[in-house]
Amino acid sequence: MKHMIAAMAGGFALLSGAFANDTEAAVAAARDWRTAHGADILSGFVDLLSLPNDANDAENIRRNADYISGLFKERGFQMELLESDEAPPLIYGLRETPGAERTIAIYVHYDGQPTEPAEWTHPPFQPRLYSRAMTEGGEEISFPLAGEAVDEDWRLYARSASDDKAPIPALLAAIDALDETGIGFTSNIKLIFDGEEEAGSDYLDDYLAAYADKFADVDLWLFCDGPTHQSGSPQLVFGVRGVTDMEVTVYGPNRGLHSGHYGNWAPGPGWRLAQLLASMKDEKGRVLIKDFYKSTAPISKAERAAIAAMPDIDDELRETFGLAETEMDNAPIAERLLLPALNLKGLKSAEVGALSRNVIPPSATASIGVRLVKGNDPEEMLNILEGHIKKMGYFITREDPDADTRARHPLIAKVTRSSGYPAMRSRMDDPRVSPLVGALRTVAGDELILNPSLGGSLPLYMFEVASTAPIVILPIANYDNNQHAADENIRIGNLFYGVDAYAAVLTMGAN
Amino acid sequence: MKHMIAAMAGGFALLSGAFANDTEAAVAAARDWRTAHGADILSGFVDLLSLPNDANDAENIRRNADYISGLFKERGFQMELLESDEAPPLIYGLRETPGAERTIAIYVHYDGQPTEPAEWTHPPFQPRLYSRAMTEGGEEISFPLAGEAVDEDWRLYARSASDDKAPIPALLAAIDALDETGIGFTSNIKLIFDGEEEAGSDYLDDYLAAYADKFADVDLWLFCDGPTHQSGSPQLVFGVRGVTDMEVTVYGPNRGLHSGHYGNWAPGPGWRLAQLLASMKDEKGRVLIKDFYKSTAPISKAERAAIAAMPDIDDELRETFGLAETEMDNAPIAERLLLPALNLKGLKSAEVGALSRNVIPPSATASIGVRLVKGNDPEEMLNILEGHIKKMGYFITREDPDADTRARHPLIAKVTRSSGYPAMRSRMDDPRVSPLVGALRTVAGDELILNPSLGGSLPLYMFEVASTAPIVILPIANYDNNQHAADENIRIGNLFYGVDAYAAVLTMGAN
Repeated sequence: MKHMIAAMAGGFALLSGAFANDTEAAVAAARDWRTAHGADILSGFVDLLSLPNDANDAENIRRNADYISGLFKERGFQMELLESDEAPPLIYGLRETPGAERTIAIYVHYDGQPTEPAEWTHPPFQPRLYSRAMTEGGEEISFPLAGEAVDEDWRLYARSASDDKAPIPALLAAIDALDETGIGFTSNIKLIFDGEEEAGSDYLDDYLAAYADKFADVDLWLFCDGPTHQSGSPQLVFGVRGVTDMEVTVYGPNRGLHSGHYGNWAPGPGWRLAQLLASMKDEKGRVLIKDFYKSTAPISKAERAAIAAMPDIDDELRETFGLAETEMDNAPIAERLLLPALNLKGLKSAEVGALSRNVIPPSATASIGVRLVKGNDPEEMLNILEGHIKKMGYFITREDPDADTRARHPLIAKVTRSSGYPAMRSRMDDPRVSPLVGALRTVAGDELILNPSLGGSLPLYMFEVASTAPIVILPIANYDNNQHAADENIRIGNLFYGVDAYAAVLTMGAN
Repeated sequence: MKHMIAAMAGGFALLSGAFANDTEAAVAAARDWRTAHGADILSGFVDLLSLPNDANDAENIRRNADYISGLFKERGFQMELLESDEAPPLIYGLRETPGAERTIAIYVHYDGQPTEPAEWTHPPFQPRLYSRAMTEGGEEISFPLAGEAVDEDWRLYARSASDDKAPIPALLAAIDALDETGIGFTSNIKLIFDGEEEAGSDYLDDYLAAYADKFADVDLWLFCDGPTHQSGSPQLVFGVRGVTDMEVTVYGPNRGLHSGHYGNWAPGPGWRLAQLLASMKDEKGRVLIKDFYKSTAPISKAERAAIAAMPDIDDELRETFGLAETEMDNAPIAERLLLPALNLKGLKSAEVGALSRNVIPPSATASIGVRLVKGNDPEEMLNILEGHIKKMGYFITREDPDADTRARHPLIAKVTRSSGYPAMRSRMDDPRVSPLVGALRTVAGDELILNPSLGGSLPLYMFEVASTAPIVILPIANYDNNQHAADENIRIGNLFYGVDAYAAVLTMGAN
């Protein structure tokens, strides 16, 4: 896939001195600033990345929180660490803009995925610079000295280089560029930096409830996390899917039985599971369960238009992933992600391969994941699934069946339900978002993708509960950043795109 | 389940001095002998069981072979160890009976399953005597002194106590009883004692081919292995099922894909496998694959009659195994075992439970076992299965697909075939078997079950190749003998039933 950002980050510089609005001036200032101060931006980022940030490492997480707070305090933010006994501090900040009628809240998470240093080329908290991606033949290079030029294809390797510390130096650089040139913000800016996102953000809703007054006046939530589109183009994303899970175990004999002595007499649980699963989804990928699609919010006109305008990456993805065909006769991925997904994450019954034995196993289990879209209630979707299993003749239990249950029911399914959370999808034609789209077009031009929804899940529904403001996601990281894995990295061009994009955000026009 | 043998082994003693034929006299002599010499029989058996007999332990296997040869040599057999560089010796023996027109070959295997001593109550090659089964509250007791009475409910614990050294002391005692009383054999007796049955009898067919002249004149093969019927009654078995295997792997993306980003776009291999398997077998257990049942030999009139006369143990088995229903609306097990079975031995795709991840797995695998009956060719049955997979739209490979194969075929199945071997089923109305049935009725009366086929598999087809003589299985071990597991044991009543049964075999009447 192409790195369109490479072209973009440098390519859309407008003629200076001819700005149609403040955002154009701001983006130009940001570009000048990062061109002149690229080495300093990298050096500051290296300091931040050197602080280990596993959410479960309380001491280091606090060092991160204090350090980041300090950086924004120096830049005129009123900073506060919101505290909980059970979670890392939530970094909160506010910089008021005189006369501003709008408040933008910027979400970043400062914790990172746990690391397995043995799998890394270098220690995960000792950042290294490469001439390009290691996987593309890049070689380690020295960091530039102050004033030296910085190449957009360089990669900086460290845990959280992309996910999700990258927005911090980019935002700081954008602020410095604007402050230095005297270009004022057009909004009040609130910071909400999560310290336990990779550990599940279990306490985020508690924080939001406990400090509801701090967030009640937010007019736009900006989520700065995740990678750009697989095409390499920058994107603004309006939604995420929700998620829930169900595990289903069906039963055969109460012990493994010799497949010769009892084969084609004792029912095999694997056959039962196969029959049950085959009743749920057809060969094309259509879910056959009654009402599975019923609560799904329709695709709006604006969403259809956005999908039509997105780059067609489907053929390229199919080739990359070795798939001759995808579900529903190669239906476009962006459209598929606006439907709930029934995923089979795992299957298990006894053993296969060298460990396989001539036994009729006592049980067979399927791990089923459900990705939810706007309109789907997690609990209700599991009810629909469970209702289908019942309709197929199964008696539902929550525990392994006892002898009495076994004697009474030929078909028994143990169903284990997880809780999960709903999807979030903001209206693409919300007038509160339009200025942001315009501002980002100043940076990215027509390459900017407006994406109705990511396929993945984030608990953004929490912010829907907290306020009625639209929620959008503005990712900056390269999609090949090795997120969550060893040798996580950021492409410098993407970091720079972030500087420009945040300058646009901070100076975006009125609704 | 009941121990009908308990009653039998003591209960059918006929009035001495009033024998209608030689077999009645022989059985009476056997009973007298084992009653008087029970302690000696046990003591001899303990010596034999003290020799470790894992087929891969060449040194100890040879100690067993030499020791057993010696025992039969003392009793007038011409003994020979048939040798191979690659397998344990095959013990061969012959005792000719002047004037006999029939040769019976007796098969036993003297090797045992590998042991895991940590799982045993006592070391597996240090035999111990219990007052009854450990699982029924039995306690360890001292071995009886010569001349002391022996209780039929006692259990002797050691590896191979049942499987399959038990026939050796039983046969020796029967020979001693007949020799002592001067009751002559009615057949020439050949011994063929296998030293690698638990290791697969891979070289048995080589031995049979290399020594074809030794076995060409056999009129009846008697397999002394396995347990009595689940009802506890003694049985004579006329067949075994064959067996073969197939492993099928179907594919999704060439790597695990995030179930959010790609769920309901990338096809899930688990769904494909479920759909494929569901096309093979219906809810009742009927195999839906075309021609799967076609080559199956019909059930003969004699077999139908035998099945009708067998004790109905199905309800009891269902209760024991926690099954409210069995395949084909509770069709009788003895009838089901005369059909080929399609067993699902294992299923695997990624992980379930705590290890499950939000990933669309790259593949899903089913381990399929096939039990074969008379008429089914192993190779041809796998062809039929593979043909079905093709018919379902799959491209068949023998290896994981490369990028080119993936690009050309939406549905790919890797099929790994094992070789397997066919079933064996002797005619129940073969005149060469009738005298044996009559002789065993002298021991067991109407309790004797004539069983058309075991459900399990033994490579008895080899003996069909070697000669045209009928092949029958005469098991003596209690069905609850912990075969292949820790704390293997034999019930003394079953050992004694063996003494009586072999006395009947050695003296059975003319065809």
